[in-house]
Amino acid sequence: MDGRKISMLGTGLIGDFYTMTLHGQRSRDRVGVVYSRSEERGRAFAERWGIPRTTTSMEEAINDPETDVVVIGLPNFLHEEAIAMVAEAGKAMLCTKPLARNAEEAKRILDTVESAGIFGGYLEDLCYTPKTLKAIQAVAGGAIGDVTWVRSRETHPGPHSAWFWDKDKAGGGAIVDLGCHCIEIIRNFVGKGNRPLDVMAWADTLVHPIKAEDNAVVLIRFESGAIGQFEVSWTFRGGMDLRDEVAGTEGTIWLNHFLRTGYEMYSSGGGKGYVAEKLESTEGWLFPVGDEVVELGYVDMFSDMFEALDAGREPMETIYDGYVVNAIMDAAYRSADSRRWEPVDVEWRGGPTERISKDVARHDGHAIVKEEVLPDGRRKLILSDKDSGSVFDIVTDE
Amino acid sequence: MDGRKISMLGTGLIGDFYTMTLHGQRSRDRVGVVYSRSEERGRAFAERWGIPRTTTSMEEAINDPETDVVVIGLPNFLHEEAIAMVAEAGKAMLCTKPLARNAEEAKRILDTVESAGIFGGYLEDLCYTPKTLKAIQAVAGGAIGDVTWVRSRETHPGPHSAWFWDKDKAGGGAIVDLGCHCIEIIRNFVGKGNRPLDVMAWADTLVHPIKAEDNAVVLIRFESGAIGQFEVSWTFRGGMDLRDEVAGTEGTIWLNHFLRTGYEMYSSGGGKGYVAEKLESTEGWLFPVGDEVVELGYVDMFSDMFEALDAGREPMETIYDGYVVNAIMDAAYRSADSRRWEPVDVEWRGGPTERISKDVARHDGHAIVKEEVLPDGRRKLILSDKDSGSVFDIVTDE
Amino acid sequence: MDGRKISMLGTGLIGDFYTMTLHGQRSRDRVGVVYSRSEERGRAFAERWGIPRTTTSMEEAINDPETDVVVIGLPNFLHEEAIAMVAEAGKAMLCTKPLARNAEEAKRILDTVESAGIFGGYLEDLCYTPKTLKAIQAVAGGAIGDVTWVRSRETHPGPHSAWFWDKDKAGGGAIVDLGCHCIEIIRNFVGKGNRPLDVMAWADTLVHPIKAEDNAVVLIRFESGAIGQFEVSWTFRGGMDLRDEVAGTEGTIWLNHFLRTGYEMYSSGGGKGYVAEKLESTEGWLFPVGDEVVELGYVDMFSDMFEALDAGREPMETIYDGYVVNAIMDAAYRSADSRRWEPVDVEWRGGPTERISKDVARHDGHAIVKEEVLPDGRRKLILSDKDSGSVFDIVTDE
Amino acid sequence: MDGRKISMLGTGLIGDFYTMTLHGQRSRDRVGVVYSRSEERGRAFAERWGIPRTTTSMEEAINDPETDVVVIGLPNFLHEEAIAMVAEAGKAMLCTKPLARNAEEAKRILDTVESAGIFGGYLEDLCYTPKTLKAIQAVAGGAIGDVTWVRSRETHPGPHSAWFWDKDKAGGGAIVDLGCHCIEIIRNFVGKGNRPLDVMAWADTLVHPIKAEDNAVVLIRFESGAIGQFEVSWTFRGGMDLRDEVAGTEGTIWLNHFLRTGYEMYSSGGGKGYVAEKLESTEGWLFPVGDEVVELGYVDMFSDMFEALDAGREPMETIYDGYVVNAIMDAAYRSADSRRWEPVDVEWRGGPTERISKDVARHDGHAIVKEEVLPDGRRKLILSDKDSGSVFDIVTDE
Repeated sequence: MDGRKISMLGTGLIGDFYTMTLHGQRSRDRVGVVYSRSEERGRAFAERWGIPRTTTSMEEAINDPETDVVVIGLPNFLHEEAIAMVAEAGKAMLCTKPLARNAEEAKRILDTVESAGIFGGYLEDLCYTPKTLKAIQAVAGGAIGDVTWVRSRETHPGPHSAWFWDKDKAGGGAIVDLGCHCIEIIRNFVGKGNRPLDVMAWADTLVHPIKAEDNAVVLIRFESGAIGQFEVSWTFRGGMDLRDEVAGTEGTIWLNHFLRTGYEMYSSGGGKGYVAEKLESTEGWLFPVGDEVVELGYVDMFSDMFEALDAGREPMETIYDGYVVNAIMDAAYRSADSRRWEPVDVEWRGGPTERISKDVARHDGHAIVKEEVLPDGRRKLILSDKDSGSVFDIVTDE
Repeated sequence: MDGRKISMLGTGLIGDFYTMTLHGQRSRDRVGVVYSRSEERGRAFAERWGIPRTTTSMEEAINDPETDVVVIGLPNFLHEEAIAMVAEAGKAMLCTKPLARNAEEAKRILDTVESAGIFGGYLEDLCYTPKTLKAIQAVAGGAIGDVTWVRSRETHPGPHSAWFWDKDKAGGGAIVDLGCHCIEIIRNFVGKGNRPLDVMAWADTLVHPIKAEDNAVVLIRFESGAIGQFEVSWTFRGGMDLRDEVAGTEGTIWLNHFLRTGYEMYSSGGGKGYVAEKLESTEGWLFPVGDEVVELGYVDMFSDMFEALDAGREPMETIYDGYVVNAIMDAAYRSADSRRWEPVDVEWRGGPTERISKDVARHDGHAIVKEEVLPDGRRKLILSDKDSGSVFDIVTDE
Repeated sequence: MDGRKISMLGTGLIGDFYTMTLHGQRSRDRVGVVYSRSEERGRAFAERWGIPRTTTSMEEAINDPETDVVVIGLPNFLHEEAIAMVAEAGKAMLCTKPLARNAEEAKRILDTVESAGIFGGYLEDLCYTPKTLKAIQAVAGGAIGDVTWVRSRETHPGPHSAWFWDKDKAGGGAIVDLGCHCIEIIRNFVGKGNRPLDVMAWADTLVHPIKAEDNAVVLIRFESGAIGQFEVSWTFRGGMDLRDEVAGTEGTIWLNHFLRTGYEMYSSGGGKGYVAEKLESTEGWLFPVGDEVVELGYVDMFSDMFEALDAGREPMETIYDGYVVNAIMDAAYRSADSRRWEPVDVEWRGGPTERISKDVARHDGHAIVKEEVLPDGRRKLILSDKDSGSVFDIVTDE
Repeated sequence: MDGRKISMLGTGLIGDFYTMTLHGQRSRDRVGVVYSRSEERGRAFAERWGIPRTTTSMEEAINDPETDVVVIGLPNFLHEEAIAMVAEAGKAMLCTKPLARNAEEAKRILDTVESAGIFGGYLEDLCYTPKTLKAIQAVAGGAIGDVTWVRSRETHPGPHSAWFWDKDKAGGGAIVDLGCHCIEIIRNFVGKGNRPLDVMAWADTLVHPIKAEDNAVVLIRFESGAIGQFEVSWTFRGGMDLRDEVAGTEGTIWLNHFLRTGYEMYSSGGGKGYVAEKLESTEGWLFPVGDEVVELGYVDMFSDMFEALDAGREPMETIYDGYVVNAIMDAAYRSADSRRWEPVDVEWRGGPTERISKDVARHDGHAIVKEEVLPDGRRKLILSDKDSGSVFDIVTDE
């Protein structure tokens, strides 16, 4: 029943979310030391969350003798360096999303982790929202048949820290920041063993004075024939829009993670002192969520990571998954440039996946396209001619 | 950072929910022993949840030397006896809702707990849903001004265990089973210090072959002038409908805890093997929730209880609150019989509450009922004559 | 294929809505003359809607030789006088809601109309919304079994004209203004032949400086055992909240007529010149409706009225219905004073209605309260003992 | 106030919808003659709608001396021939969507109509839904700033008539059947004068045994930089999913036309005799719409067409618009084959459109990417370096 001792690297917004989760409810895990480049930010963070020690040396934080697990909540361009140090120290490592700025960097990280033989987890929180977990399970259980299409949408008015907006430090713009979530959500729904074949992307910088894209729409074609589609934006107005939709041969799933979750509030603004979090306004109709760290998946994510570590198994989201995500994003950027479908260049560890197929019923040898029962009880059959493929209908008493 | 050791009394549905929560995520608390009248059910429960010991002696479970906290998940008619035993043992006690079958019984329980000086908590989970907690905080922060009206609705097709349906064992029907939740939700929104003055209730047995009511609508009038309204039913079709609405002088809050929370699924029923929980069907449009023990408040409820115990403070929901709830339900049953408003007979510990009031603006001494700006920029004032009270309007350039 | 020629009495908001509807789309009916006390308002109205003639004499408008149908859109206290004049003229008459300020006045109106033998229609638009019409039909078709409970809610921040706020001119406050809609919606769902027996009401003036009630909650008990419940308010914040809910032994219906109908818009307020109608704001999240005169029932209402007139049949909403509504509102006001259920004093023209009943299945003579299938395939029966009424369960292989 | 006399060509589902609308409510227009290839279907249709005459000669129907307006509700492959005949007869012509099977055919139709100088209207109903009309007006009024992205989704389980499924007769599959709606909805939101530059499409036949595509996702790039995105499917489960989303620099619009419009019903299936229309089931949770011909735009569409004809102006949806839609669909099919963006080949009649732009605020010459107010009142500025484009932040007191 012992908990884990954690070193937290980074004191940005994601560090706050992670630590709020790790120290939340009746948790037995605790952050023992926090690293920040800035002594001031480190101290403020430690006070905020009741963390005993703080340091401005990443090495010291990683090698803290009490530490079991290092959580990396640093900007993208610092992941590789930090992970190398954790591998060296031989400790368990959990890295925030995206894993890297591109697939090449991601592949080196994967190799480092696997060579060192350390436990690695990819902190892709949005695959762990309670709704997503339950929906993935429903899909796996056959509730909607074969998945044909997944839409994942993640948009808001733009991130809080400067480095996100800097293409060199982040590796890209809205695709790298938000699309990484969407890709992994899509992969969980179509099946992680379903190979992503190629990618078609539109990306543009429509509003903000930056070099990176602030809007993108991307399609991913999988081996089964299923299509993944994601929309990301740093120019959305109205809050944070996180929605997923899944279509299958036998059903449909719609998930809404933020703006319409059953909490609706109108405030005239006349009541003093109240500040709603993360909403564009404190007046008018507002749509808060219940417990944000639950709804965004942080709680289930860390539970899975630590249970996996305790049990000696792989977590649901692995470092390899993070590498696949980077490979898909690389293809998206290539496609946005070349204006054509681009193959996903990845060392694929899964096997092959069969094409979606529905058993075709036949009538006199012709494939039945559709069948309807008429008011008088007879059946109308829409048939595809076995020879010509032309479509016609008949009415039958059978 | 030590966790709590718990004795669980009862192995029904509520015992499952409680233990799922207590052992959930990375919790440091654990159930050490479970009591059931039936050896078979006790053993199955212990296996299901990894509980080391099981017993058919309530006394043994309560007096287990490792136990800090006794959680009572027994039928209503057994609460008083069990609580007396826990008080005798001098241990912390958490009792499921409702506290008792009526206010007299509840008052004896309250006296027992207070005489013994033990920690007592009232396990009213639905006041602890993350949405409810955040909404209570928003109301307290003034986001919707003074509360004028609260609606709490809790309906489903009826409970699973026989004793619920038996008026003598349960103390009543749908009001006792479901109304107890609604009352406490309403009290949290209008303010717990806001005295419930009187109650008007309609109750009837419309569908099921039982003596207890299977449908009821109840109004509660509070000292501030605010009205609470609750609707309970054991005959609802379509799942479990848990909704709260709050109106205030400056705003509105709508909470939906179950059927419309951002997870919507259609299944043709063609996919094999999938079983959706607690829904009336596994076909057609289905509305699951994310993490049920979070959404229904169990997680935050136990956190508050244990944090209160650790800190030596009172929990948000106390044994006194449970007694107030029973007093209001007693008034509801009296009103359903007498067909008139019935006073709430309770030993009130709160102070007085002022009447809801809005500052009235005046024009030439007449109260302004409404003010509108006309297209040409002039103002139209609807005024209440200071002498006669008759209402008229003027248009003014001021 | 000839249209009707209409005299419109009154140029307030309701006159606008009526005329917008009558002249809307490809309608063949036309308003030929409009009456207003004020020459200026009459002229502006006539220009707005392309009406050829205007007059300040009600008599002249009614007796216009080209007029078939007189539509009364006047304040409540003027209905009786106007209707008497129309009856005298022997023309068809359509009167806005509520029919009168109280049942006595309504009864006199009913007698006047019936003695004169003229066609009379009660312009209760909200019973005619396309959603309501379809839902009434679904209920009549058995889609939700026997109706057990209806909730109708109509709330907004208060009316635009002074006379609404004046108890003497209007006959009351929010109950008379809004409750009249709710009552008729409820009656259509429980069945118009289902006699309203008695009424329980809470009413209070919580916010506005007026003598009339600005908030009320009212219960209506029908002969079948079904309960109607309505909530009205002139202090709601956030727009206009029009919702109905119907529970039946076999199903549930939820209707939302205004704030959540599938049109959701966020505006930063940065775009110039746009004015959203009837919303509290033009910024933040806004919830317009599509075509307001359709969604609020005006279109189907006038179609039914004119088709009924053409066909020589009664419209769906009759003058008698208007009288029943007033009788129920009278009982509500009496109950708000007496604080007990008050009988509905009405000359009932319907017959008796049987009590809601579900066939009770039995096992060994005991009534089956509930039946569940266990995972091992056996059935669990919750039974009500045929002698004692106590409830117990058994598990059976049958 | 005279109505129009109409010849209806075709007696399929669309003919029913059109005639239901034309004869609906208090309309002054009437269908005088209906043409069907089949005498039996023609007679049944005429009886259903009270149409005086029926014929199996298209020529006779068109040249009926009483007819003002010919409405074409025929399969796609018959449009050109029928329109040529109407042009010859010199009558007003309204043609169902899509205008033609491809842009070449559409261009010939456009030329025919313009040479003959007859009135032509393109019956694109979904641009005329009351919600869409109001939203287009809101966008035009600046409520959401510059449009950056539009999503239009139209999916259901597949059409009822055989010819839809036949690529040769229809001109394609789900893109031609459903995408034509989406394209015109998108064009109305981004502005009809905003030139569609190129198109990227994915299309596949995933489920049905046909040659045409049953699923597609298509992107359209406009001259302003705005992107249109549509999703069409004949394999959707759960009813008919019609949703549009619009993002702008100052706001957001979400429209839902069918499955979530404020009418929600659960039916156990226990009530006899009830048949819900167009839903996959009559049990479980069902989501009807209010008045289908209103909600789907038919009413406002025909009003606009006839008002335009009466007034001698162009309708909102013209034959030229129908041709543009075909040109965009042609590009989509080319792209689905070539797997790259394909230019839209169209004779463009609009002018140029400026690129979306937001004024960039500056600080010390650096562009301000984002500005936030810190808790201590100071401002945090995220800036893009004027020389290097790298992004950094500063905190300022100014």
